Amino acid sequence: MPSTRRFDPATLQTFVARSFIRVGLPDADAHTIASLMVEAEMQGSDGHGIIRLLPYITRIESGGVNTRPRLRITQERAATAHIDGDNGMGHLVMKRAAEIAIAKAKVSGMAWVGSQHSNHAGPASIYARMALPEGMIGLYFAVGNANHLPPWGGLDMLLSTNPIAVAIPAGNEPPIVLDMATTVAAYGKVKAKAQRGEMMPEGWMIDRQGNALLDPKRAAEGLLLPLGGAQAGYKGYGLALMIGILAGTLNGAAMGKAVIDFNVDTVTPTNTGQAVAMIDPAAFGDPQAFRDNVDTLINELRNSERLPGVERIWMPGEQSFYKRIDCAANGVPLSAALCDVLDTLADRLGVARLV
Amino acid sequence: MPSTRRFDPATLQTFVARSFIRVGLPDADAHTIASLMVEAEMQGSDGHGIIRLLPYITRIESGGVNTRPRLRITQERAATAHIDGDNGMGHLVMKRAAEIAIAKAKVSGMAWVGSQHSNHAGPASIYARMALPEGMIGLYFAVGNANHLPPWGGLDMLLSTNPIAVAIPAGNEPPIVLDMATTVAAYGKVKAKAQRGEMMPEGWMIDRQGNALLDPKRAAEGLLLPLGGAQAGYKGYGLALMIGILAGTLNGAAMGKAVIDFNVDTVTPTNTGQAVAMIDPAAFGDPQAFRDNVDTLINELRNSERLPGVERIWMPGEQSFYKRIDCAANGVPLSAALCDVLDTLADRLGVARLV
Repeated sequence: MPSTRRFDPATLQTFVARSFIRVGLPDADAHTIASLMVEAEMQGSDGHGIIRLLPYITRIESGGVNTRPRLRITQERAATAHIDGDNGMGHLVMKRAAEIAIAKAKVSGMAWVGSQHSNHAGPASIYARMALPEGMIGLYFAVGNANHLPPWGGLDMLLSTNPIAVAIPAGNEPPIVLDMATTVAAYGKVKAKAQRGEMMPEGWMIDRQGNALLDPKRAAEGLLLPLGGAQAGYKGYGLALMIGILAGTLNGAAMGKAVIDFNVDTVTPTNTGQAVAMIDPAAFGDPQAFRDNVDTLINELRNSERLPGVERIWMPGEQSFYKRIDCAANGVPLSAALCDVLDTLADRLGVARLV
Repeated sequence: MPSTRRFDPATLQTFVARSFIRVGLPDADAHTIASLMVEAEMQGSDGHGIIRLLPYITRIESGGVNTRPRLRITQERAATAHIDGDNGMGHLVMKRAAEIAIAKAKVSGMAWVGSQHSNHAGPASIYARMALPEGMIGLYFAVGNANHLPPWGGLDMLLSTNPIAVAIPAGNEPPIVLDMATTVAAYGKVKAKAQRGEMMPEGWMIDRQGNALLDPKRAAEGLLLPLGGAQAGYKGYGLALMIGILAGTLNGAAMGKAVIDFNVDTVTPTNTGQAVAMIDPAAFGDPQAFRDNVDTLINELRNSERLPGVERIWMPGEQSFYKRIDCAANGVPLSAALCDVLDTLADRLGVARLV
């Protein structure tokens, strides 16, 4: 029995969209979200892809998300906009935010759009990557939807794994796309270790005495370490804090104690904050020269002499790039366990199972 | 004999300015740079403060820096400007860049200004902090002036410790100011360990076989580890790369192999690239409410329960804030070794020694 099954992206999108329509979303919105969730899956962001369908549906059914939001630009200037997402699905809010930022950046050289009353929107890189077809640079920041990180030296989990994504267009090379949590390991990786019955490596988590915590089944007793770990974790703490302020506090969205743990509470609006910024390289020089210089840089890095045992030097986002091509050609792999969950959901919602 | 001497900030500034004037800088430019170098020293950025005077002067005397630059805005839009620094001192270029960004952000909500043909400008936070008197958020990115970091898995030192700084205004609390290199340890910390005859902790550097390198006197044989270290260093590598592209490649400035090691080569123009961005919180909501919310967040984090042995939880930049107050009240401490260097320099240039 294969541990994964592969599905045509369009089939997957249709299934996801039907599920959202069944719980009250308008057709167009359901397809927008489904398309972005399939895109997340295809680039390998499986922790933020189809696996989220059940929790999203559960939250919608609990009344925790507004299925008919009226997105509203509360104010805008030449290079900025602030969006009130009206507690709609984050994908809708941030796709709109990225579109506004691109339109403004075309005129003003760059733009920054922030959201409040938004929700989880999937992987950060999806929105940063919206810059690429325009030949722009995209940046994305978000407040995570559960706090697992204390301040440096502290025990109270007041910060999330607040991610940052940056997407850089290249010429002939794949774009460079960074998408990272500001902890050593994202919390999803801890859950995956627990599911597989594996121990965590030292450096992912500590217990409340500051000792290494290796058993992922004891994760609830422990704290994630910020990027930099025991030695330089004050830097990761600083990054998580700054990203949280830029994405959350600046927008009047939840930060610190106000963050709702959406794994536990499916009802209270999360007031999620996110920000997307777009930069037009043409505002800083010749855009073709820029893309050529990015290609040159990629080749310098890729052709570096390598450490013993290293077969290839990868650019950030390069493995996702090839994964996307593979999924488009050969179908999107979903684990058998996830397929079971989706079948159960389909039966419950009364939509056709994935085949 | 005390190991440090303290100097009045104004005295220090006068001394530094006179040194620059003696090697050909206009009075106003010399005082601008001196003021920023003293500010760096006062906030504890001693690796980027007065210790740089001798290498700056040496570079100017070697003809590596243009003492009479004509800064030129090559193009600008509502939210962007691109500055050609004409190989002038980086302090002049980036102070000008920050001023332009602030003026544009007042109108457009935010602005991003990039430089090419600039030079080392001191600590990143100096320019991000220029946002604070305006009640704005400041960001700063730079390409470092020597490559010590290979790509992840590689051995060729193609990246620098490219720093990022973010400055956030608060209400009654000190501002939050992050200023960090994207390596575990900045190269200056390695040099300091060597000077003190100490070993480095494991995790700062590796040798070319990938083994821990602990002796800082062997630093030339080794590689800095990116933030995240052996476990998650691909994230620090990604950050160093992205900051380098945003500050360097985007501006037509040096990145990768084109970066000049200014410790070794004092003649070739560095074509340093930097970027500064300013965000007006008023473009995203009520600015007073924002500052109040930052205060609330600071107090939540500071009052967290603490790990055993931790006396206090600090915000990024908080220790610098108190150091600045101490220096203003009690004078700026310089090591006896640095004072000797400055005396020798003063005698050679024919300016009055520091007293």
